[in-house]
Amino acid sequence: MDKNILLGHGSGGKMTHDLITDLFVKYFNNDILSPQTDSAIISINSGNLSFTTDSFVVDPIFFLGGDIGKLAIAGTVNDLAVSGAKPLYLSASFIIEEGFPVKDLEVIIRSMSEEAKKAGVKIVTGDTKVVNRGQCDKIFINTTGIGQLPDECKNIGIGTGIEPGDKIIINGTIGDHGMSIMAAREGINFSAEIESDCACLNLMIKKALNVSDKIKFMRDATRGGVATVLCELAEKRSFGIEIYEEAVPVRENVRGMCELLGFDPLYVANEGKVLMAVSGEDAEKVVNELKNDELGKDAAIIGEIVDEHHARAWLNTGIGGRRIIDMLAGEQLPRIC
Amino acid sequence: MDKNILLGHGSGGKMTHDLITDLFVKYFNNDILSPQTDSAIISINSGNLSFTTDSFVVDPIFFLGGDIGKLAIAGTVNDLAVSGAKPLYLSASFIIEEGFPVKDLEVIIRSMSEEAKKAGVKIVTGDTKVVNRGQCDKIFINTTGIGQLPDECKNIGIGTGIEPGDKIIINGTIGDHGMSIMAAREGINFSAEIESDCACLNLMIKKALNVSDKIKFMRDATRGGVATVLCELAEKRSFGIEIYEEAVPVRENVRGMCELLGFDPLYVANEGKVLMAVSGEDAEKVVNELKNDELGKDAAIIGEIVDEHHARAWLNTGIGGRRIIDMLAGEQLPRIC
Repeated sequence: MDKNILLGHGSGGKMTHDLITDLFVKYFNNDILSPQTDSAIISINSGNLSFTTDSFVVDPIFFLGGDIGKLAIAGTVNDLAVSGAKPLYLSASFIIEEGFPVKDLEVIIRSMSEEAKKAGVKIVTGDTKVVNRGQCDKIFINTTGIGQLPDECKNIGIGTGIEPGDKIIINGTIGDHGMSIMAAREGINFSAEIESDCACLNLMIKKALNVSDKIKFMRDATRGGVATVLCELAEKRSFGIEIYEEAVPVRENVRGMCELLGFDPLYVANEGKVLMAVSGEDAEKVVNELKNDELGKDAAIIGEIVDEHHARAWLNTGIGGRRIIDMLAGEQLPRIC
Repeated sequence: MDKNILLGHGSGGKMTHDLITDLFVKYFNNDILSPQTDSAIISINSGNLSFTTDSFVVDPIFFLGGDIGKLAIAGTVNDLAVSGAKPLYLSASFIIEEGFPVKDLEVIIRSMSEEAKKAGVKIVTGDTKVVNRGQCDKIFINTTGIGQLPDECKNIGIGTGIEPGDKIIINGTIGDHGMSIMAAREGINFSAEIESDCACLNLMIKKALNVSDKIKFMRDATRGGVATVLCELAEKRSFGIEIYEEAVPVRENVRGMCELLGFDPLYVANEGKVLMAVSGEDAEKVVNELKNDELGKDAAIIGEIVDEHHARAWLNTGIGGRRIIDMLAGEQLPRIC
């Protein structure tokens, strides 16, 4: 295992075969994957499915709180979970640069396997391509997921039914992932190190859905941060969103680093944060349920749906001012996920 | 459209949003994709599904007979089809190098859209990442597919039930894709240009399945070529495979280029070829049905399952000799798909 990935590992021949057997099948080990045909056979009860895909190109591939493998599982599991679905099966596809250390690949595969087990999903099919040195940067991973979507949840991804009076809830501090990556990339050291929030949220979300049938919308606030989710939610709607800046949880070290680098935490990527719109009557109950989960211990109501400034999200700043939350125009942080 | 891809197109913000609306939604246009949430909601009757993933890194991205977009659709549709499934839904995920021409992206997207329509599949969810210049080579595409697998087909991917006397069938000439890519890459010009066989085989395969319930195994012969499929099929089995070299269809220009470059066509990638194992009594009928389809017009029986040299595939060469078909040891042609 003190070897490097060679072009032959992507040939589809014997070396690919050995890599699959020695690493992928070993760690992702399950009945569906093991026949090693090109397609997995999965069995699902009839009804609606959620289907989502994401490619992960994060740089660096190892960071405090995770790595590209953990991120690739959490990102896709969360996209399924916020649609209201129960994540079931994932595919995993790797593009690897020639010369990549096999031991690093093993760390990534192990971390994917652990995260998938935690979330209760199976990695059932995959693909490996190797490109020449310099033709990709270390490793890129695509995960695509299938989840079962109960009928009563099928509008959660779009948020039909949202109305003024609904509360906006988040399950904890924002900006942790983005600033963790920035710190790792730039070699910035704060007294308290910034850990990515990268985690699978499906089990926490399930608890929330169990205590309330009035969760009307969910979205994970990844690239573009909380601000982008709010803008997309408000856009073209007959309601507005009001966010109370003081209520938005931000870690001190994240706030400090954002100030230092000129970022607004609202726009910084998260990888373990879900934004919910919940009817006013159930909002406290949902927050309390989230707080019972380690991944939701800092959950808070951070705003509400209002019958004003339609199609816009507004921020009430701590000092009594107000400003529009706009969509991110350019790119703040390339390769954040 | 005379623009280039910028990092901001992968930000998750406004530029990503515009790119999705102006290109992806425009060309992939369907009801399921248009809500533009992170997960598509698809509805499938109960039963078994085939689920498969592939990342495409082909170089060059445009070649005679196709491009990376067409290839990305055909590759995944074919993986589903050879499992015996009816391909239904695809995801498409893009990793694009900063500076990539938007007009080239549009050609690729259009070609994906056309190929998907031909095959009767919908592209229902996607993702776009942009990496800095030099961190990937132009564009990589992942497609992941879901197909419905009838009960009577669920062993076709593994080939349980194969027995001596079954015939090995291929739907046409081998090595076309690999040699087309090599010619495009190296700027080699033959009097007759070599066109890739890149195509979706699902409709042709369906016709074959309609005339025979004795198709016991199918696999598309992509990376590693026909030889790799034969080796994987024979490995650890209580039967052997015998291939008659003279019966294997190879175009003259492909054979010439293979000889020139020192390749064995049996190991060269195809992107529109399926290898089948069919019971002796139905073999002629299946070949004739394949021949009725443009994509199967050169179909032929090229070998059979034998009760000899178990777990091995053998080639009977034209001059009366015999040799073992071994698995590819290293890499012949990196980035062939």
